[in-house]
Amino acid sequence: MPNAETLVEVWRGSICESRHRGHAVIWDAGGDVVAAWGNPDMVILPRSSCKMIQALPLIESGAADAFGLNEAHLALSCASHQGAHIHTDMVETWLGSLGLDEAAFRCGPQMPNDKEARYGLIRAGEEPGQRHNNCSGKHSGFLTLGKHLGAGPEYVDLDHPVQRAAKAAFEEVTGEDSPGYGIDGCSAPNFACTLTGLARAMAGFAAAQGTGTARDRAQYRLTRAMAAYPHLVAGEGRACTRLMRAMEGRASIKTGAEAVFVAILPEQKLGMAVKIEDGTTRGAEAVITRLLIGAGLLDADHPDAIHYRHGPIRNWRGIETGQYRVTDSVTGWTL
Amino acid sequence: MPNAETLVEVWRGSICESRHRGHAVIWDAGGDVVAAWGNPDMVILPRSSCKMIQALPLIESGAADAFGLNEAHLALSCASHQGAHIHTDMVETWLGSLGLDEAAFRCGPQMPNDKEARYGLIRAGEEPGQRHNNCSGKHSGFLTLGKHLGAGPEYVDLDHPVQRAAKAAFEEVTGEDSPGYGIDGCSAPNFACTLTGLARAMAGFAAAQGTGTARDRAQYRLTRAMAAYPHLVAGEGRACTRLMRAMEGRASIKTGAEAVFVAILPEQKLGMAVKIEDGTTRGAEAVITRLLIGAGLLDADHPDAIHYRHGPIRNWRGIETGQYRVTDSVTGWTL
Repeated sequence: MPNAETLVEVWRGSICESRHRGHAVIWDAGGDVVAAWGNPDMVILPRSSCKMIQALPLIESGAADAFGLNEAHLALSCASHQGAHIHTDMVETWLGSLGLDEAAFRCGPQMPNDKEARYGLIRAGEEPGQRHNNCSGKHSGFLTLGKHLGAGPEYVDLDHPVQRAAKAAFEEVTGEDSPGYGIDGCSAPNFACTLTGLARAMAGFAAAQGTGTARDRAQYRLTRAMAAYPHLVAGEGRACTRLMRAMEGRASIKTGAEAVFVAILPEQKLGMAVKIEDGTTRGAEAVITRLLIGAGLLDADHPDAIHYRHGPIRNWRGIETGQYRVTDSVTGWTL
Repeated sequence: MPNAETLVEVWRGSICESRHRGHAVIWDAGGDVVAAWGNPDMVILPRSSCKMIQALPLIESGAADAFGLNEAHLALSCASHQGAHIHTDMVETWLGSLGLDEAAFRCGPQMPNDKEARYGLIRAGEEPGQRHNNCSGKHSGFLTLGKHLGAGPEYVDLDHPVQRAAKAAFEEVTGEDSPGYGIDGCSAPNFACTLTGLARAMAGFAAAQGTGTARDRAQYRLTRAMAAYPHLVAGEGRACTRLMRAMEGRASIKTGAEAVFVAILPEQKLGMAVKIEDGTTRGAEAVITRLLIGAGLLDADHPDAIHYRHGPIRNWRGIETGQYRVTDSVTGWTL
């Protein structure tokens, strides 16, 4: 089995201080591998990178249309958001339209990453709620589907109709029988697949035309929703939001915990999937940034493209102390 | 050159989700390697793990005694502290005794990790100061030495007498000519060495008797100061503090950024040094914990020993979702 390969070096002064090894696959919707690094058969947990897959049953079941969800709702259902007011306000309104409040969630409370929201809670002496959880948009989608199906409240249980539907969609778009699962940070099951399976799934989203099967139309709507609302998919200052803005809607990208990153490239009908084996987000961000440059979608000189693939790394006084260096095996790739 | 080897696996459900590779060396003060993993000749930046080395000139020069520093001050000079009030109050008093205030620091402001201190600043609408920087104890030591030497205010410059003294001490205790350096998060130069050199330096501290040369007495005092004041070296909830408490003063340990961890074992006259190649702290914590168990200094069943080498990993609802597994090559080692 091929080993993980070094994809990113972290330099400080004259010393290569740390290294990130990993795996990456670029898959063509026609069914071919375009490029691969490390072990493309590596079994991974996609974590939040597969939220657009978990959202497929929300649309395909008719639930999204029955409850009048718009494109912004669909983007939020794919989000790992910052818990900013723009996110939590939408979640509260959405829950209200279902006749629910955040007590219906099973994602757990999380202090928001958004500074204004976090400082607001701390200054008010309040604890964060489940609406602040970065997955509360996905869970709003789960609750919508559960209500549409008339299913019970424990929607993160493995055998709940919502999770059974999510697993079925996951196995169909990855083209694999999932070999196992883990419980995610938000308590939903997260199904395993190979990195190739995840790239294949993203290529499927990329190829969707919005005019075919229910699957095709759902994939098309979710891909466009993410690209249209980059600030809902993550938030200000975050890689997904900044890089999608920099690409002006030409690709939909999504991060996942433990250093997973995926990209959907509709123009090229390609899917990308990256997993840094040590779980460090900076490594996955650097690699996906360089791959998007290689695909011709991201300007190498865009400030955010420089920021995520190169840095610089600065210290507490703002002094430049180092940088990231994506290795030649990645920088050598162009589409 | 031997490669980094997998030292820690991170499991979630039925899937090994992430892996940490790295290097480790255990060195005997007699001059022999006791055990090694990965590449013992790996050149690393020790970052904050070498603060007890950087503090040697503070004592050896006579500065510490001239300014009446006690054992708590010496512990704080080796600290990567949390910016809790117990730390910043000491720093402010120390600076005052030098006739200085925090404007003399060159470490930069850092939001404290200590929750009470952090929330206090946010609620008061105040920005953190340089006293909150995790390195402000080390920098208090630098300022003390600089004053004692009658040197100028730019004490983090590479050619300042304080840094020249730190480099000389570093090269002497590692037994190596440093092959380069980086600028640390706190703006001080951080000199490179091999992992073996760092373990050799820790073994030198371990062997100090407090009755010999100025070096021997300084090493002895710093080692005992760290063990006597574990809450000053890091802070509540932190690995250095919790594990030193669990060992009841039998070892002095110190973390460094980018996943370095060292241990000084006076009873055994051993030094340990760990570097996880990807820079992830959880990996270094798991490995040093298991090595301290293997050395007979840490009870494997102590709750903090379990916490750092095994977990469990819990999610936002407190549900156990996974655990760390230190690999057999490490768990198989006992002294």
